[in-house]
Amino acid sequence: MRVEYINPFISAVQNTFKTMLDCDVHRGVPVLKEGICPRFEVSGIIGLSGLAIGTVVLSLSESVALKAASTMLMCETSTVDNDVIDAVGELTNMVAGSAKAKLSQYSLMVSLPNVIIGQNVEIRFPSNVTPISVPFTSPWGGLTLDVGLVAIAEPIAQPIAEPLAV
Amino acid sequence: MRVEYINPFISAVQNTFKTMLDCDVHRGVPVLKEGICPRFEVSGIIGLSGLAIGTVVLSLSESVALKAASTMLMCETSTVDNDVIDAVGELTNMVAGSAKAKLSQYSLMVSLPNVIIGQNVEIRFPSNVTPISVPFTSPWGGLTLDVGLVAIAEPIAQPIAEPLAV
Repeated sequence: MRVEYINPFISAVQNTFKTMLDCDVHRGVPVLKEGICPRFEVSGIIGLSGLAIGTVVLSLSESVALKAASTMLMCETSTVDNDVIDAVGELTNMVAGSAKAKLSQYSLMVSLPNVIIGQNVEIRFPSNVTPISVPFTSPWGGLTLDVGLVAIAEPIAQPIAEPLAV
Repeated sequence: MRVEYINPFISAVQNTFKTMLDCDVHRGVPVLKEGICPRFEVSGIIGLSGLAIGTVVLSLSESVALKAASTMLMCETSTVDNDVIDAVGELTNMVAGSAKAKLSQYSLMVSLPNVIIGQNVEIRFPSNVTPISVPFTSPWGGLTLDVGLVAIAEPIAQPIAEPLAV
């Protein structure tokens, strides 16, 4: 995965959390990963396809998932129920949707968001894809973003390149 | 999800296992599910997008995953390593790719296959999507197919309808 692909996803996480949840998230150092072992309990996952194919995994600690859902639903929630699952899926969908708009040269479409729940769950990518993992901190707890994206056709030429922030 | 969407995925599982692995799989009774709790340890997951969006989950018992990988790799393997993960991802990709060809009215594209590993893992769909779950038996052990698909635009008219087998 080319490292500059990750920037639109990082901005998308920060903007989505700020706009939807009034929550400031701060990113740590992105790392290349061989596989993915989400460090958190509740992970939204969504596929991307177009001139590139890929996956976005937004992995949230339970405290972040509950606070995010409580804010979106405007009522306190203390267990990971269907409403929390829908909220995490919707956040994942918004992150992927916002990033794809900035990667228009790949004409990406998003699939349906799913939410994976469990302790010690591994979410692995094909061995020929090295995803980039970005840790974030927030006042509610930790989260990570993992993105694997592979071009399968020539991108459409763009007049202005996105500046490289990573 | 409309029940007739599931037939191309059922055929795709049977044909992929027969063609790639020389393994006869027999389907049980499809059920509508509120969420998904794969009953098996190794699950391939892939997104679909186009005029419909969705997810395919192919959940394999460890014995099926190992036997399938051994057959594809033409060498015995006894642990779920990177080769097994790649083989399960590739099987999931083939099932989704084969089914999408029979659902051409939705102009579907597949995303990247991921593989989820763990005990007691839940893979949930948005609450407004009811996936169909199909159990299969095989000489190597059990597997399940779960498919959730939602039309987001009018399908392209097709001259001949697929016969309804479910």
